[in-house]
Amino acid sequence: MIYAVILAGGVGSRFWPFSRELEPKQLMKIVGEKSLLQSTVERVRGIITPSNIYVVTNSIHFYEVKAQLNGFGIPDDNIILEPQGKNTAPAIGLAAKFIAYGDPEAVLVVLPADHYIKGLPGFRRTLKNAIHAANSGLLVTIGIKPTSPATGYGYIKIKSKIKNQRSKILAVESFIEKPNLVNAKKYCKSDKYFWNSGMFVWKASVFLQEVKHYLPGLHRSLVSIHIMKDVERVWPTVKSISVDYGIMERTKKIALVPAKFYWSDLGSWDSLEEFFHKDKSGNILSPDTLALGCKGVGVFSRSNRLICAVGAKDLIVADTPDALLVCSRDKTQEVKKLVGLLKLANRKEHLVHLTERRPWGKFTVLQSGPRFKIKLIEIDQGKRLSLQRHKQRAEHWVVVSGTATVTIGNKTMLVRSNESIYIPNATLHRLANLTAAPLQIVEVQTGEYLGEDDIERFSDDFNKGSRLDV
Amino acid sequence: MIYAVILAGGVGSRFWPFSRELEPKQLMKIVGEKSLLQSTVERVRGIITPSNIYVVTNSIHFYEVKAQLNGFGIPDDNIILEPQGKNTAPAIGLAAKFIAYGDPEAVLVVLPADHYIKGLPGFRRTLKNAIHAANSGLLVTIGIKPTSPATGYGYIKIKSKIKNQRSKILAVESFIEKPNLVNAKKYCKSDKYFWNSGMFVWKASVFLQEVKHYLPGLHRSLVSIHIMKDVERVWPTVKSISVDYGIMERTKKIALVPAKFYWSDLGSWDSLEEFFHKDKSGNILSPDTLALGCKGVGVFSRSNRLICAVGAKDLIVADTPDALLVCSRDKTQEVKKLVGLLKLANRKEHLVHLTERRPWGKFTVLQSGPRFKIKLIEIDQGKRLSLQRHKQRAEHWVVVSGTATVTIGNKTMLVRSNESIYIPNATLHRLANLTAAPLQIVEVQTGEYLGEDDIERFSDDFNKGSRLDV
Repeated sequence: MIYAVILAGGVGSRFWPFSRELEPKQLMKIVGEKSLLQSTVERVRGIITPSNIYVVTNSIHFYEVKAQLNGFGIPDDNIILEPQGKNTAPAIGLAAKFIAYGDPEAVLVVLPADHYIKGLPGFRRTLKNAIHAANSGLLVTIGIKPTSPATGYGYIKIKSKIKNQRSKILAVESFIEKPNLVNAKKYCKSDKYFWNSGMFVWKASVFLQEVKHYLPGLHRSLVSIHIMKDVERVWPTVKSISVDYGIMERTKKIALVPAKFYWSDLGSWDSLEEFFHKDKSGNILSPDTLALGCKGVGVFSRSNRLICAVGAKDLIVADTPDALLVCSRDKTQEVKKLVGLLKLANRKEHLVHLTERRPWGKFTVLQSGPRFKIKLIEIDQGKRLSLQRHKQRAEHWVVVSGTATVTIGNKTMLVRSNESIYIPNATLHRLANLTAAPLQIVEVQTGEYLGEDDIERFSDDFNKGSRLDV
Repeated sequence: MIYAVILAGGVGSRFWPFSRELEPKQLMKIVGEKSLLQSTVERVRGIITPSNIYVVTNSIHFYEVKAQLNGFGIPDDNIILEPQGKNTAPAIGLAAKFIAYGDPEAVLVVLPADHYIKGLPGFRRTLKNAIHAANSGLLVTIGIKPTSPATGYGYIKIKSKIKNQRSKILAVESFIEKPNLVNAKKYCKSDKYFWNSGMFVWKASVFLQEVKHYLPGLHRSLVSIHIMKDVERVWPTVKSISVDYGIMERTKKIALVPAKFYWSDLGSWDSLEEFFHKDKSGNILSPDTLALGCKGVGVFSRSNRLICAVGAKDLIVADTPDALLVCSRDKTQEVKKLVGLLKLANRKEHLVHLTERRPWGKFTVLQSGPRFKIKLIEIDQGKRLSLQRHKQRAEHWVVVSGTATVTIGNKTMLVRSNESIYIPNATLHRLANLTAAPLQIVEVQTGEYLGEDDIERFSDDFNKGSRLDV
């Protein structure tokens, strides 16, 4: 049987400030109306039955991934959770182990969740060719014919020139790390070089054999995992390593199948250029933007602020409510480094958006003062927050739309739109939306101490993953 | 007697988005802890008695100017209000007329409210020289010796070279409009050229004679004004014209006194360069900014967002909660044009900040939704809003600091910190801060229609000027 293993554990920090560690690139809508993860699932589900589609992700993303997969028919158990990201080799190994346990002959189609692909018929033909090769025991990498001398990708050199355009399976000579521009130009002109796309097809059993041979430490870890719960114990000791570096550059069983579709890894802000409308001066402008004498400027906005650019050239402006990026177009790769610095500085802006998602909905801190904090809280249909209590702070709730079911002490009551209620400090309370419509409330917190850690939880519907309450 | 006429009617739109039509440059703190208007008053009050200091401004700025002049001992009646801005000749004419009425021998020191000056002793010596010349019937313009080939200023050519460094009063040959760079370089090297600073000294009577001769229409308008109230009727028919173009370029009575102080007109974002600390790469960075590989970047922030710049060169970033400007450093003059476009487009961002000032305090719209609006309202000590009523919307008020005196219908009560109160629609109400401490409340408006025009006012402490309530 054929299985998809979708790798959705990355951070995609080069799209900061749109992407955050807790809201990574693959869960974002970058091009089109679906997230990259949803588009990836959509692409394979005509070829692979939903119950055979697996998604590997970080456990902190469980509820968001689950919500995004809603409607695709993928069982919750197919979401494989890593307590820590360990790069691609361990992630694929973990999926291979679990799938092979139920189906020793399983063939895995390994797909990153955060790429853009156009041309579904070509994608299917490519997979068919790759599956054919995989069935004969090869580790197949899907190669992209370069269309530009990109220096941001690894390249794969094949053994002989392609004589016949129809050749479907090619022998690989070597892997080449990200080249300089001179070499990239040479590779781009030659017909012996492909971009390394990170898409692979192989039998789970063959892959695990190669792991045993080339990454024996990882193999021992995988062998010691019997049930999903074991992962939490074993994973911290697993070494981070990419499948390219750990297996593909060393295995003798490698083959390359050329992609018959359009591909972009959406690697940085600059890569979005081809997906959006440009004005006569080559500017991509979000709706609430005014540009005067600009050229090659890309404005991407998730705030509701007016953005004006005057006389700017070759610049990316990416705006969110709590963080702004202004980046020269030829330096968009550096954004990753920037995010690393923010993390080192213990900032919040690399981790979460101002509007933070929770399994039950989301909330935004609208304003903080010395003795107050104002939040807009949105609770999804049928969801409720934990039963909780705050030592220090009191809370005023004004329902602005929907109907809240509020428990205070041992009383439960309905609070309707345009009504308000007061929760004194030290009082047990719970907020729920038992209706079929969304619920929005404004919470005004007052008190001497308003830290998020002033909360005691007594009962919670959500305990998978590790995201905080509100 | 000597009088100061401080011209505080400008908009200073080149400092958008920090400056707005209702919060113009002269009322802003750009350099130092005082506004430019306050610094201007401070500069002259050692030389001119406060009761002789007049400020000409637009009537919409009355309460803000009054608040800024608090403590300087300047009578409210010395704030001369124009219902519309008509450029400098009418503004000075109006002040001259009113001052000459009480003191026919008055000498006026005319100062723009929005310039930066350093060197108080030199400033005083300059004024002394200029007043001396004015007393002999001359119209004195204060000229600045160019320190760079600036193309943003008008130049004044004197009749003969300065042979004696001590020469205090110079004859003027001609006015030169903003030159190109080639000419500016020539002027900068020569000792016959000065920058036109817009600071003037003359007898009110001499000035009004020249207005009669060169601007007879304006003179007729001024003659028809007998009391301040007449201005409202007359002003709409007055033609906008600068004193340079209308009088100084044509009068035979002109003389130039060289400035003996450091001067900057703070004409644009780029002019701030000399006032702020630069890092090794020539970047000026506001506190919450991270710059990676940037050169010559100026980040000015009035938002509380993180700003990151990567690989940018010679760029100004000016950030506010509702509008962002990204501007090439050599195009900062174009910001004025940009603001003109915003005005044409009927935007709000050229007019007011997200936090709007009112005579009684200020308010900020924190969030708007389809059926709700959340405001943070701050009421100054001893102030109150109008007695009012809304047809459509209901209001929830949560006091977050201070004590509110709230009238609802015919009842008045105290609402203390951490207490809340509900104002149903169609109910007469009033919000007051009768304490000696500031009052902060969070207002959650709910209802089908939340437009600012849903208000009926029954009594108001503020009716001078034309600023809206909340």
